[in-house]
Amino acid sequence: MPKSRNLASKKSGLPPGSLVHVGKVHPHEQTISVANYNKSSLDKRTVKTIAELLPYKNQDSITWVIVDGLKEVSVIDDIGQHFDIHALVLEDILNTHQRPKFEEFDDYLYIVLKAIALTDTELTVEYEQISLLVLDNFVFTFMEKPMALFNPILNRLDNDKSQIRNLGADYLAYLIMDIVVDGYFTLEEAFDELIESVEDTLLSEPSTQILSTIQKIKRELIYLRRMVAPLRELLAAIQRSESPLLTNKTRHYFADIYDHVIRITEAIEAYRDLVSGMLDIYLSSVSNKMNETMKVLTVFASIFIPLTFISGIYGMNFEYMPELKWHWGYPTLWVFFISVAILLLGYFKKKKWL
Amino acid sequence: MPKSRNLASKKSGLPPGSLVHVGKVHPHEQTISVANYNKSSLDKRTVKTIAELLPYKNQDSITWVIVDGLKEVSVIDDIGQHFDIHALVLEDILNTHQRPKFEEFDDYLYIVLKAIALTDTELTVEYEQISLLVLDNFVFTFMEKPMALFNPILNRLDNDKSQIRNLGADYLAYLIMDIVVDGYFTLEEAFDELIESVEDTLLSEPSTQILSTIQKIKRELIYLRRMVAPLRELLAAIQRSESPLLTNKTRHYFADIYDHVIRITEAIEAYRDLVSGMLDIYLSSVSNKMNETMKVLTVFASIFIPLTFISGIYGMNFEYMPELKWHWGYPTLWVFFISVAILLLGYFKKKKWL
Amino acid sequence: MPKSRNLASKKSGLPPGSLVHVGKVHPHEQTISVANYNKSSLDKRTVKTIAELLPYKNQDSITWVIVDGLKEVSVIDDIGQHFDIHALVLEDILNTHQRPKFEEFDDYLYIVLKAIALTDTELTVEYEQISLLVLDNFVFTFMEKPMALFNPILNRLDNDKSQIRNLGADYLAYLIMDIVVDGYFTLEEAFDELIESVEDTLLSEPSTQILSTIQKIKRELIYLRRMVAPLRELLAAIQRSESPLLTNKTRHYFADIYDHVIRITEAIEAYRDLVSGMLDIYLSSVSNKMNETMKVLTVFASIFIPLTFISGIYGMNFEYMPELKWHWGYPTLWVFFISVAILLLGYFKKKKWL
Amino acid sequence: MPKSRNLASKKSGLPPGSLVHVGKVHPHEQTISVANYNKSSLDKRTVKTIAELLPYKNQDSITWVIVDGLKEVSVIDDIGQHFDIHALVLEDILNTHQRPKFEEFDDYLYIVLKAIALTDTELTVEYEQISLLVLDNFVFTFMEKPMALFNPILNRLDNDKSQIRNLGADYLAYLIMDIVVDGYFTLEEAFDELIESVEDTLLSEPSTQILSTIQKIKRELIYLRRMVAPLRELLAAIQRSESPLLTNKTRHYFADIYDHVIRITEAIEAYRDLVSGMLDIYLSSVSNKMNETMKVLTVFASIFIPLTFISGIYGMNFEYMPELKWHWGYPTLWVFFISVAILLLGYFKKKKWL
Amino acid sequence: MPKSRNLASKKSGLPPGSLVHVGKVHPHEQTISVANYNKSSLDKRTVKTIAELLPYKNQDSITWVIVDGLKEVSVIDDIGQHFDIHALVLEDILNTHQRPKFEEFDDYLYIVLKAIALTDTELTVEYEQISLLVLDNFVFTFMEKPMALFNPILNRLDNDKSQIRNLGADYLAYLIMDIVVDGYFTLEEAFDELIESVEDTLLSEPSTQILSTIQKIKRELIYLRRMVAPLRELLAAIQRSESPLLTNKTRHYFADIYDHVIRITEAIEAYRDLVSGMLDIYLSSVSNKMNETMKVLTVFASIFIPLTFISGIYGMNFEYMPELKWHWGYPTLWVFFISVAILLLGYFKKKKWL
Repeated sequence: MPKSRNLASKKSGLPPGSLVHVGKVHPHEQTISVANYNKSSLDKRTVKTIAELLPYKNQDSITWVIVDGLKEVSVIDDIGQHFDIHALVLEDILNTHQRPKFEEFDDYLYIVLKAIALTDTELTVEYEQISLLVLDNFVFTFMEKPMALFNPILNRLDNDKSQIRNLGADYLAYLIMDIVVDGYFTLEEAFDELIESVEDTLLSEPSTQILSTIQKIKRELIYLRRMVAPLRELLAAIQRSESPLLTNKTRHYFADIYDHVIRITEAIEAYRDLVSGMLDIYLSSVSNKMNETMKVLTVFASIFIPLTFISGIYGMNFEYMPELKWHWGYPTLWVFFISVAILLLGYFKKKKWL
Repeated sequence: MPKSRNLASKKSGLPPGSLVHVGKVHPHEQTISVANYNKSSLDKRTVKTIAELLPYKNQDSITWVIVDGLKEVSVIDDIGQHFDIHALVLEDILNTHQRPKFEEFDDYLYIVLKAIALTDTELTVEYEQISLLVLDNFVFTFMEKPMALFNPILNRLDNDKSQIRNLGADYLAYLIMDIVVDGYFTLEEAFDELIESVEDTLLSEPSTQILSTIQKIKRELIYLRRMVAPLRELLAAIQRSESPLLTNKTRHYFADIYDHVIRITEAIEAYRDLVSGMLDIYLSSVSNKMNETMKVLTVFASIFIPLTFISGIYGMNFEYMPELKWHWGYPTLWVFFISVAILLLGYFKKKKWL
Repeated sequence: MPKSRNLASKKSGLPPGSLVHVGKVHPHEQTISVANYNKSSLDKRTVKTIAELLPYKNQDSITWVIVDGLKEVSVIDDIGQHFDIHALVLEDILNTHQRPKFEEFDDYLYIVLKAIALTDTELTVEYEQISLLVLDNFVFTFMEKPMALFNPILNRLDNDKSQIRNLGADYLAYLIMDIVVDGYFTLEEAFDELIESVEDTLLSEPSTQILSTIQKIKRELIYLRRMVAPLRELLAAIQRSESPLLTNKTRHYFADIYDHVIRITEAIEAYRDLVSGMLDIYLSSVSNKMNETMKVLTVFASIFIPLTFISGIYGMNFEYMPELKWHWGYPTLWVFFISVAILLLGYFKKKKWL
Repeated sequence: MPKSRNLASKKSGLPPGSLVHVGKVHPHEQTISVANYNKSSLDKRTVKTIAELLPYKNQDSITWVIVDGLKEVSVIDDIGQHFDIHALVLEDILNTHQRPKFEEFDDYLYIVLKAIALTDTELTVEYEQISLLVLDNFVFTFMEKPMALFNPILNRLDNDKSQIRNLGADYLAYLIMDIVVDGYFTLEEAFDELIESVEDTLLSEPSTQILSTIQKIKRELIYLRRMVAPLRELLAAIQRSESPLLTNKTRHYFADIYDHVIRITEAIEAYRDLVSGMLDIYLSSVSNKMNETMKVLTVFASIFIPLTFISGIYGMNFEYMPELKWHWGYPTLWVFFISVAILLLGYFKKKKWL
Repeated sequence: MPKSRNLASKKSGLPPGSLVHVGKVHPHEQTISVANYNKSSLDKRTVKTIAELLPYKNQDSITWVIVDGLKEVSVIDDIGQHFDIHALVLEDILNTHQRPKFEEFDDYLYIVLKAIALTDTELTVEYEQISLLVLDNFVFTFMEKPMALFNPILNRLDNDKSQIRNLGADYLAYLIMDIVVDGYFTLEEAFDELIESVEDTLLSEPSTQILSTIQKIKRELIYLRRMVAPLRELLAAIQRSESPLLTNKTRHYFADIYDHVIRITEAIEAYRDLVSGMLDIYLSSVSNKMNETMKVLTVFASIFIPLTFISGIYGMNFEYMPELKWHWGYPTLWVFFISVAILLLGYFKKKKWL
């Protein structure tokens, strides 16, 4: 989970619609990549200003604009003005503490997603906000920082026989969402492995270390669920939507992502169930070990404390202690010691403590 | 639970609709069995290619095609082309990580189920994905590997007076679903027995071993619920469906499966409730045993430690210790020892520790 | 809870609608009692075959048929044929592992209930399945074994001024359901008493015995809920039903049973809440007792172990130990012993351990 | 919680609609108070029989009848006959084990409530059933025993400028319900105080006593919720109702009670949350104290047991033990004793056990 | 959480609609600030009586009235009379124990909110009730005590180009609600930090102190949820509302607050999940530490108790004990002592206790 210092509070007092970047600042250069394509042509390039995109507006083609980085607020502002986007949407694009959502406007759709970047095996997950603006023949993608996430789609664009070249902006939006959602499966696998390994060590050697790992998994699952759960209603809303921007043909594709989201949601719930039982197992396991420790102590103490008492008796200095004078006193006592020890061992054996 | 390494991630980056087998690869030969029947005739055979099925297309009969194994992707591809199946459905047939679902298309219905194969008494459950394509007079069944699951239906086909020979493809689909769902009852019985035996040993001898069995049952129940829960909405959807492929006559039959599914769902919930209490019982039982251990230790130590102290006193070497000179000193001390021991024993008896 | 070996699996492979008795076989003779009545006449008798009932079919009277025992499958089969009952309903009547349900057909209603037989004070509950077929002027009642459950209704029939003689088959069905549901209140009282007595002993003397009683109550509550919960939707369905077999006049009566069912459901939930807390109380109580044990041990050991050490010192055989020569050495040491003991006792007193 | 021996079972076997008083019998005389009022006149008196009320039937006034006590079943029976009330309603009025409910009939409304009587500071709550029959210009109130609950309303009637004198029977019903619901706030405050005081002692001195108080609070909350929860749907039903007996003007007033009920419901949920955590805190607190006890024991034992061993060595009677002959042997050993003790104390200090 | 002595009970018995201030009395002077504005003019001032506001009623401008403090009931009464507000609304404004709600009347909207005042770092949250009356061109804001909360809005009014000057009363209401809801984010951040710091110390040094902090967080979260949860349905109701007082233009703005509220609600749920696990972690951590303590005790006791016994043997005074005469007896014994100690240490090492 990222250090989610939620800086929404930093904005309190500002008028709504103020364009301020809220979220972690990535020190990367902001780049604007453009792919303009239709059945017959493909043009990929990088632009400096939004103004360069305006010629595409009246062409019979799809233009995909990928904005990597949110540092330069003016770019967002330009898009807002040239493509007539609501001020609150622009504000939301810049605020990377959004929850996934789908908003339908007359001329465009606004979609917020969270892409996953699993930084290493230690289960440190980073969530990057991906915003989508789907217009009639434009798709804007906003990312917090440059990522290679969309390369497979860009590569497929090269092939002029791929479906993507034949279908509209909504299909492109579907592909983008699909690739983001597929990323969650990677995380699911990581959880799967981690939980299994934790469960194994849980029973064998419960340590404070594992306690903190369990809490970490729990935290990540809570956070992941907050990111994934809204996707369900988001995709249901897309499927229900009657916006002319969504063609009937792609509806089946969105249903497919919906299915994936449900599978991930169910997996998260299953993990939560498993993890919630882990603390109980930990506690049970520690109690069990404590009982073992206690038995060792009890066996040692219960055998030797009475014997020590006996030996203490014959260490007393009373003048009249007839046993001390007996020739066989000492060996007899050894026999007694050993008998008592054996009897007690037998007793503990019967109690299954040994 | 099968090692559910969810390899959906293996597909990320591929275009949607790519036919790739996702799931455990079974090293069995793929076979295609066909049963073509109507009221008067029955023809069972094995075919090599889908092309051999095409003649049945225009006959007044039902053709049941059982594809055992998903290794040869081309077979699925052929079915897709000859019977006009959506690419995403074909993709789903090959991906054995589906959740049970029902999808309604104009010309066919697509149903995914999970059949249970209880491999042994150790509660190692394997889930085999069964996909159904129900067309007007064709039913395709896809299985991960050859199973004897459908033999009862195949045998009943031989009897030309059985209902199956008189009713349509939807009744066949019902029979297939019924036999899959009936399999869950076997699992329910296995759980019933296992849980009862665990409960018995839980109170008598709580061990780490039983902890891991409980966790195993919990895991299996979580997994089973993920497989069974969607069946409820699946069957509700079938009953609501207005597809002409589902005749009114079979609706009552599907209602019957729905009932079975609810019974299984309720049983799973009941088991989960019972199992969730087991860890608490385990912990309580261990704590109880620990208390018993502690009492033994306390009784031994509390009786002998004071006595040892007394004997230690008379082992001291002070020159002036008048008791040491007394003739009855030693016997008196024994009386004292025994009195103290009896008093303490009485005290612990009163505390119900003995 | 009955040993619910769910033998539904025994049927797998049989064609649906096969009439096989699934459930515990009661070694009682199957009897068929009939009560035919209208405002003016009443005729109670016992018949051997279903054929004897056919003359009642066209009379202006209500005929109540009570089938005690399900051993002879042919009786059910005959009813099916003479009264045109769906094969799946007949199958369900014979399968005593049904959950309570209400099914509406054109000519009849099918209702499944579970009657309670509280065998003794040990809370061993037996559930007997009661199936009802409500036709226009016939009511069939099927029971697993002979029970006196319906005697009050049979007695009331004798009084020709009672409402039952003036109202239709639906009112008789209401009376039957009412008497079954009233039986649950007896169980509720038994739980009430049991839970209260368990709670009392829980705090005073937590034992493994009580642990197993708690688990038993939990099991019974889970099972009872499975039997009662579906009644709610069952009665709601009856109230919603537009079947001509249910007259407007009896609707208020069914609303009354609905109320009873809700009260029982709420009581079960309340008991579950209470029982779920019991294990925690048990654990807390055991921990508390363990702490008491530990304190006793600590007080004994902490007082006598240091004293024993001191006495051990003066038991050493060093040649030069000046204290040993002092005349008041021994009495001084006793003063020291007693002071240390008093100091430690004071310390533990301050800690509220004594 | 009252000893809720649910005697509904006492009625099993009786025909429905039998008028029998089910519930605790209060040994009070049954009284029937009447208040007849309109804008200009007010007449308060006590009657013996229901027949005395009949003259009010055709007057242009509201008649409020308060029946204190349910002993004389004939009174209820008379009301039923003179005002044409359904037999099941009369039965419910006499059965004080009802849950709160609202039933709408053509000519009257039937409302059941539970008034709270907080008998003392020990949180012993008594629930008295209040039944309301709201007719066009009659309001009947039935109580289990005489209570001063409605005196404020009766007093307000005296003032001929109060709203109550200007509005209809539904406003009177609102006032009665409002006063009953306001009673719950008193209980809420009692819970508030009790829970806070329990929480304080929980951390400082966890005892078995507090365990039983927690369980008591839990029980009362469960019972209170069963009484309050149905009020929500009851008031929603009143607001939805299209009965001509409820005028538009009073709808806002019922919305106000609805709000109060939601506040109480939320408070109960909050208390349940807090109380459910208390057992865990108790357990944690006991465990913590046990650990403290254990540390004391360990520190004492670990320091003195090794020292005692050393002193034991020099108490041995071997002929050849050179140390015993050394002049500085004994003082050296003291130095050693003290060093070991200091070292161990330092070790335990470092472990934060002291 | 404020000491929520819910004094609603203080009102029982009073007729509904009685204007009495229920809640904590703040000793501040009540002030009435007014801001009257339209596109071209702005007039801010303070008034003494409500009568001074009446001239604004027919102007083409928005008048915002901020009432700080609820001491003088007559002010509320005047507003009720001059602006025709329902008596129950006035009563609710004065009762600061309301839950957030939205009520729609023909001529005005009534909104209740709870503003947060985080008094210090110790997480002592104060909730101040903010009531809003939104009329056609009037907005009344009622606060319990003077707060600087609305200063940013008042400042923005000065700028005649700001949206607020161009839009209606509903936009002003939105701004007020937005600023209240933004306040919750500050609280979220405080929780975030606190929970993280608690988690850290939980594993390292579990103390009773931390137990009480956890319980405090839990209490505050329960209380916060009670304040925030109703906002969700409140905002949904505003969005659904068809009141002419809410223009289409501001609907998007309310959707934005709705989003914020959902984010806060989800954060609260996440915190609750985390906190609910903390007690388990605490318990696990304490158990773990107890086991550590026990191991130390067991190691010390198990090594030295047997050795002490041996030394006790050779301290006995039997006349015939041959070992005592051996020249190498004493050194041999030392070798034996050390061997036993090493063996036991090895044994405990193998058990991973050291």
